[in-house]
Amino acid sequence: MTNRVHLITLGVQDMKVSRAYYESMGWVASPISMDEITFFQSGQQVLGLYLQATLDHDTGLSGGKPGGVTLATNTQSRGEVEALMKQAQEAGATVLKQPIEMPWGGYVGYIADPDGHPWEFSYVEQLVPNEDGALILPDSL
Amino acid sequence: MTNRVHLITLGVQDMKVSRAYYESMGWVASPISMDEITFFQSGQQVLGLYLQATLDHDTGLSGGKPGGVTLATNTQSRGEVEALMKQAQEAGATVLKQPIEMPWGGYVGYIADPDGHPWEFSYVEQLVPNEDGALILPDSL
Repeated sequence: MTNRVHLITLGVQDMKVSRAYYESMGWVASPISMDEITFFQSGQQVLGLYLQATLDHDTGLSGGKPGGVTLATNTQSRGEVEALMKQAQEAGATVLKQPIEMPWGGYVGYIADPDGHPWEFSYVEQLVPNEDGALILPDSL
Repeated sequence: MTNRVHLITLGVQDMKVSRAYYESMGWVASPISMDEITFFQSGQQVLGLYLQATLDHDTGLSGGKPGGVTLATNTQSRGEVEALMKQAQEAGATVLKQPIEMPWGGYVGYIADPDGHPWEFSYVEQLVPNEDGALILPDSL
């Protein structure tokens, strides 16, 4: 089998709050979502919101603290990065870092969602999604 | 623009160790990888390994502790779940939970990669990837 991330699960404290945030960001909850889990189709994979206490029970971990994993939406332009930052703030996100030009050439901002999960909104000329929304790595930079 | 997770970044302590782990799991590092970052194509998106100290600098967060986010590989069978668990252990992962039948019908095991990031290997009859490796949500369960 091919290695693949099929599902990303984010632990949440209050499903109503977190689902509302993602819906404000334009994500559409799948009809198979339930009280304790929300599924969003994300291209060919799935983004899930799951109650943190249940996730802790499943993994056997507890006391997770955001910062070790980031999710990124790559955009077509600097303007889109700024629009996403604004949209996220209005939806209840916390700004971690306003977009800046990175030394390696990207334009990158960070926010934290209502549960503190960091998201990166970026414009990187060599890493722009194609017309299908797919991010395919180039052979060289 | 369509909401999409284009890039998942995992913070790592020792790039050599973490890259070797993922390569042992069958992931192929892109030629654009560098000392401080490793890129793996994952279907239509990208999985990245990035030095945690640099990630902390970028996000402004620190002291992240795994547990709030899980990544999952969905398989075609219970046997594949067991094979992935075994492969991960041999590659240096820590078993968090041996595969069990979940009350809701899935067969799910968890491991932690060398940096503690939890991965779920699962067989869920309604959430089996298609022949392209895509996980497309059904309309109902």
